[in-house]
Amino acid sequence: MSARVLLPWTDIEVPEGVEAAYYDGGEAVPDGLGEVEFYVLPYDRGPEPPKLIKELPALRVVQSLSAGVEAVVPLLPAGVRLANGRGLHDLSVAEHALALIHAAQRDLPRWFAQQARGEWVREHTRSLADSRVLLVGHGSIGQAIERQLVAAEAAVTKVASRPRPAEGVHGVAELPELLPAADIVVLILPDTPATRGLLGRAELAALPDDALVVNVGRGTAIDTAALLAETRTGRLRAGLDVTDPEPLPADHPLWTSPGVVITPHIAGGSASFYPRAKKLAAEQLRRYVRGEELLNLVDH
Amino acid sequence: MSARVLLPWTDIEVPEGVEAAYYDGGEAVPDGLGEVEFYVLPYDRGPEPPKLIKELPALRVVQSLSAGVEAVVPLLPAGVRLANGRGLHDLSVAEHALALIHAAQRDLPRWFAQQARGEWVREHTRSLADSRVLLVGHGSIGQAIERQLVAAEAAVTKVASRPRPAEGVHGVAELPELLPAADIVVLILPDTPATRGLLGRAELAALPDDALVVNVGRGTAIDTAALLAETRTGRLRAGLDVTDPEPLPADHPLWTSPGVVITPHIAGGSASFYPRAKKLAAEQLRRYVRGEELLNLVDH
Repeated sequence: MSARVLLPWTDIEVPEGVEAAYYDGGEAVPDGLGEVEFYVLPYDRGPEPPKLIKELPALRVVQSLSAGVEAVVPLLPAGVRLANGRGLHDLSVAEHALALIHAAQRDLPRWFAQQARGEWVREHTRSLADSRVLLVGHGSIGQAIERQLVAAEAAVTKVASRPRPAEGVHGVAELPELLPAADIVVLILPDTPATRGLLGRAELAALPDDALVVNVGRGTAIDTAALLAETRTGRLRAGLDVTDPEPLPADHPLWTSPGVVITPHIAGGSASFYPRAKKLAAEQLRRYVRGEELLNLVDH
Repeated sequence: MSARVLLPWTDIEVPEGVEAAYYDGGEAVPDGLGEVEFYVLPYDRGPEPPKLIKELPALRVVQSLSAGVEAVVPLLPAGVRLANGRGLHDLSVAEHALALIHAAQRDLPRWFAQQARGEWVREHTRSLADSRVLLVGHGSIGQAIERQLVAAEAAVTKVASRPRPAEGVHGVAELPELLPAADIVVLILPDTPATRGLLGRAELAALPDDALVVNVGRGTAIDTAALLAETRTGRLRAGLDVTDPEPLPADHPLWTSPGVVITPHIAGGSASFYPRAKKLAAEQLRRYVRGEELLNLVDH
C-alpha cells in the first residue's frame, strides 16, 4: 500500500510507494485527507496551512519549510513527528544581507533615482572591501554571510550569544567594546528574550559616525526609536529586511529616514530556496517510505 | 637634497628625502613645478592633470592611479618612466559587479520604489545562489569577482580571450556553446578590437529567457541596439556600469528599458580604492628615494 502525501508542488519527483496530492495553501483542498500520512506545509502562506493538520487523522509527519516552527508546534497531535526547513534559506538570507550592504555602501538608491531622470552624474562611493564588519549571529546563515564578506575582503569580527574563543567568536557581552570599531554591523539573530533590543540607544551611540546597521534576522533586535533618532540626523545608516513593528505601517517615519533602505522581509524567499526545499522534501519522502530516520527532526 | 613630489593628497606619510607639494587636479597649481621629479596623477579628474606634465622639466616618474594609461603615454617626454594603478581598483570593481547582480536578482529597484510609497508588499525574488554565471574576463578583477560568486554558491563558468584548460578557463570562441546555459553573464573586459561587440545580436539571442547581462568592463563589449531589442521585450535583463555611448545621453532609451539597472561608470571609484592607492604611492616614493626598482612600470 502506498503512503498518501500532501505536497505544495506538482513538479517534484516522488519515490515509489508515495501517492502525491497537491495543496498550495489556497482555498482548494484535495480529496482523501483522511489518508494523508505526510504533510509538507506550503511555505510562507500565512496561518491557514498549519490549521489543516487537525483534519488529517492518519498524519504521521509534518515537514515545515521554515527554520522557525513555533506556530506549528501547538497544533500537532501527540505522536506526529515534525521536521523543519533548517538550512534551506541560509543562502537566500545571506545573499540578501550582502545585497543590502552593497545597496547602502555603493549608493544604489541614488543611481536608480538618477536613472529615472536619465542623469549621468558620477561620484565616488563607500565600499565593502576593507570595511570593518561586526557580524552578530553565527549560526548557519551567519557563517554563510561570513564567507561572502571574507571573499569581498571585508574585515569580519564574529559575535554570537556565547563566546567561542577557539573559533574566534566573541560573545554579545563584548559588544560595548566592539561597536566603536565597526563600519558595518550585520544582525542575524532569532527573536528571543535575550536578543530583543540588543541594539538600543547606548549601543547605537557607540557606533562611529556613518556606520551602517544591517538587519536580516528579526526586527525586534533593534530599538526602532533609537535607530530612527540616529538615522534622522544622518549620523547612522541602515539596511533593513526586518523591522519592528512588522509590517511597517505606511506612515512610519522609518520609510523616509535618510540613509535607510528597507525591503519587506523577503530575504528568505528567493528562487534558490525552491530547488533546495524540493530536494529536502524528496529526500524525506524517500526516507519515510523506507522507514529510515528523517532529517531535521524537531523535539516538541 | 630632497626630491620634489606632486601628490593629490595631503594626508599620506611621505618618506624622508621627499618634499611633497599638493595638486588635486583643480585650478590651483603649486609653486616650484620646475623641480618636480615625481608626479602622482590625481585620479579620475579628466584630461587636465596629464597636461601638467609638459610644465615639469625635471620630471622623472609619472605614477597613474588607473590601470589604463593610454591617455598619458602620448604626453610623456623621453626618459620619463610611467607606473600604473594596476590592482588598485580590483576589489572596488568586483564588489560593484556583485552589487549590480544583487540589485537585479533581488529586485532592489522594486523595493526602493515601494519604500518611497511606504508600501509593505512581499514577493519572492530570483537569487544569485545556484545561478549559473558565465564570467567573461579572467584578469585580476575577474578573479576577484569569481571568489565572491563562489562564496555566494553560484555555479561559475570562466571565459577569457584564450582558453586555459589547466585553470578551467574557456576561450571566447566557446561562447556560442556556453551562452545557452547561463542565467547571468558578467563582462569584465578591456576595450580592444577583439572585445568590441562581443555580445551582439546572435550572442544575446543565444541566452535563455530572463538571463541577466552585467557589464563592469567597457561599454563597447555589448551591441547596445541588440541589448535594447532584447530588454525592451522583457526577454533579457541587464545591470550596467558602463555603456556605449558613454555618458549615456539623457534621452537614450536604455535608461527606461524594463529590467535594466544603470550606474554611471562608478565601479572603480569607491572608498576602498583610496587606502590602496595611498599605500602604493607611499611605497613607490620610498623606492624612488632609495633608488630601488619601482612597481607597476609600464613600457611606453
